[in-house]
Amino acid sequence: MLVQKYKDMLSGKSVIRQLSEFATARGQEIGYENVFDYSLGNPSVPVPQAFTDTMIEMLQTGETALLHGYSPSLGITAVREAVAASLERRFGLPYRKEHIFMASGAAGALAHAFRLVTEPGDEILTFAPFFPEYHPYVDLSGAVLKVVPPDTDTFQVNFGKLEEMLTDKVMAVLVNTPNNPSGVVYSEETLTRLAQLLRDKSSQYGHDIYLISDEPYREIVFDGVEAPCVSAFYDNTIMCYSFSKSLSLPGERIGYVAVNPNCRDAEAMVNMCGQISRGIGHNCPPSIIQLAVAKVLDQTADLSVYETNRNLIYQELTELGFQCVKPGGTFYIFPKALEEDANAFCRKALKYDLVLVPADTFGAPGYFRMAYCIDTEKVERSLPALRKFVRETYGSL
Amino acid sequence: MLVQKYKDMLSGKSVIRQLSEFATARGQEIGYENVFDYSLGNPSVPVPQAFTDTMIEMLQTGETALLHGYSPSLGITAVREAVAASLERRFGLPYRKEHIFMASGAAGALAHAFRLVTEPGDEILTFAPFFPEYHPYVDLSGAVLKVVPPDTDTFQVNFGKLEEMLTDKVMAVLVNTPNNPSGVVYSEETLTRLAQLLRDKSSQYGHDIYLISDEPYREIVFDGVEAPCVSAFYDNTIMCYSFSKSLSLPGERIGYVAVNPNCRDAEAMVNMCGQISRGIGHNCPPSIIQLAVAKVLDQTADLSVYETNRNLIYQELTELGFQCVKPGGTFYIFPKALEEDANAFCRKALKYDLVLVPADTFGAPGYFRMAYCIDTEKVERSLPALRKFVRETYGSL
Repeated sequence: MLVQKYKDMLSGKSVIRQLSEFATARGQEIGYENVFDYSLGNPSVPVPQAFTDTMIEMLQTGETALLHGYSPSLGITAVREAVAASLERRFGLPYRKEHIFMASGAAGALAHAFRLVTEPGDEILTFAPFFPEYHPYVDLSGAVLKVVPPDTDTFQVNFGKLEEMLTDKVMAVLVNTPNNPSGVVYSEETLTRLAQLLRDKSSQYGHDIYLISDEPYREIVFDGVEAPCVSAFYDNTIMCYSFSKSLSLPGERIGYVAVNPNCRDAEAMVNMCGQISRGIGHNCPPSIIQLAVAKVLDQTADLSVYETNRNLIYQELTELGFQCVKPGGTFYIFPKALEEDANAFCRKALKYDLVLVPADTFGAPGYFRMAYCIDTEKVERSLPALRKFVRETYGSL
Repeated sequence: MLVQKYKDMLSGKSVIRQLSEFATARGQEIGYENVFDYSLGNPSVPVPQAFTDTMIEMLQTGETALLHGYSPSLGITAVREAVAASLERRFGLPYRKEHIFMASGAAGALAHAFRLVTEPGDEILTFAPFFPEYHPYVDLSGAVLKVVPPDTDTFQVNFGKLEEMLTDKVMAVLVNTPNNPSGVVYSEETLTRLAQLLRDKSSQYGHDIYLISDEPYREIVFDGVEAPCVSAFYDNTIMCYSFSKSLSLPGERIGYVAVNPNCRDAEAMVNMCGQISRGIGHNCPPSIIQLAVAKVLDQTADLSVYETNRNLIYQELTELGFQCVKPGGTFYIFPKALEEDANAFCRKALKYDLVLVPADTFGAPGYFRMAYCIDTEKVERSLPALRKFVRETYGSL
């Protein structure tokens, strides 16, 4: 008999996926260049040339057994060393290879982190608005995801609600900063207060509460401001990173778990990730991609287009009267819809070939997400359509 | 709190791993070329040049967003089509892309197969001798692995024991042919009888019993004989394949699940694999590797060295009086040790710098495995050492 829970999941269709399919179908009618598709968070900028050059050089000159041979189960040693050195240089924490586990993207990293610190039935808290895939990621690990309602003024942490929900069943708190979908970067003040609360509650409940920090957007920050390093605020932090966005390599499934060197049992935790892998069929990210990424660790794709797009869209939305927190990073913006039902709002926008995503599944009904990882030229062409949609549908604001 | 079961696993050390570490350490003393290391099943032949050329060409001329962009969750459509066409051409079953799920190697494929057809507590049967990693693969999925004792005369299936153990708790039977560690290829007679038994028991118990066929060694067969295609014998077969051995790409984590087109619900099963992925952090094998492998699907590395090695070793072992089933494929051979305790036997061999693996963890105490995926030149040099070890330790046989 086929397992019913997976069968049941087939009938639930993601809103993002449906909208993206609409955009593709509409593109076949009127040309995809005329569909203002803000549905998917798919990096649009090219991979750095240095990555491509490194790959070609390795393939031309390397021995195939070294390039394509088995990776040790924790990752290629030299790659783990390079990642640790880069993190230490950048964030000042004493990372060594013993703190690094190479994973197949952030999804792979999170799959290990959840299993490290939760038994079935244990709770993990996250903060709305949140990436909807967190639900299957956590639920299918056996843990229970609970969502702390948003602070809609700032999309920082709603501490009042967090304190209510942070019971002794909670083994981990999952943060995502810079945030998908809000684009907000958690402030030092937020992280300081969160860390203090987790220390207090760990001590009160007599067990560690881990902070799992999902940071694939770490490098996409605006106005010359760096995102505060979550691990620097709290010892028991498990950093989950992906190169998907920083190097525009989402298909290559490459990232890592970095356990804070000050975390109790940090080295054992990394070794435990190797054991978890045996159970979930992970067995390491692709070897040649590990080797290539290690050579371009401190580089990024040209991410400046995302800031250009943010500026254009934020200004337009503000002028049109939208309530909207200004994104500090990512390639998302998260305005309040112009009517209570964001689904209705987004449906109406489709008539103007504007593909916007209503945020019910992100835990913030009444809001919508725009993923502006598209060409600036298209963003510019979309603004008159946005203006027209708003004026014709909601009058002058 | 860290999860105890993974912590506990850290203390259990694999015999193969320990022996491989011994070989490396001994190599640092006397030169690795002088250690006759038969411990690891790590392909030794180069990747086909066509794979490398394809990779370079794609990197030089392809658009990075297409090469490195997100793969759809079931795999890149054109790649799934190519795999299906190749399977149909080769095995005559009407595979279509709807039957193919791209996975990160056989470990990834098996992780999905087990979860498709078992709820926690359900049983999966496999046959000794078996690949020891099946235990963590199955146990950590929540299912229970039970091992049918070997038929040591042939290392085909022990049907007497299988019939006893095939209760209504069994949801799947896991086969690995050509087999690691015995090197044996299941005969048409074995597969016909196995299929008939599974059909009978499925009907008796009123639920399907699936056949999960782990076939990474499918292409490594000797004496010009093809391995019978397991799926051709039984409709409810889930094929789990890896290119690790056929293309010498174990580090790149590329393989697939192919559900028999005649299996009830075949297409739903493939879609369910996409849902399982969300829970285990899989999210597809690397995109550029998918694209490259699709272009060399019907090629293999030059696998002839394995047959040359098999011939040399089998002849020597037979002359020395070992009881040994002649391998029909893989790069393993599985003789009976010359004393009851194969661990003691293998310890004694180490004094001659022969690294052999005792088979207790393979479910066949008293036997040992030699992985002859090493240079023929080294195999030749190892034979006098083997002779000397046997004669000095066990006298003339």
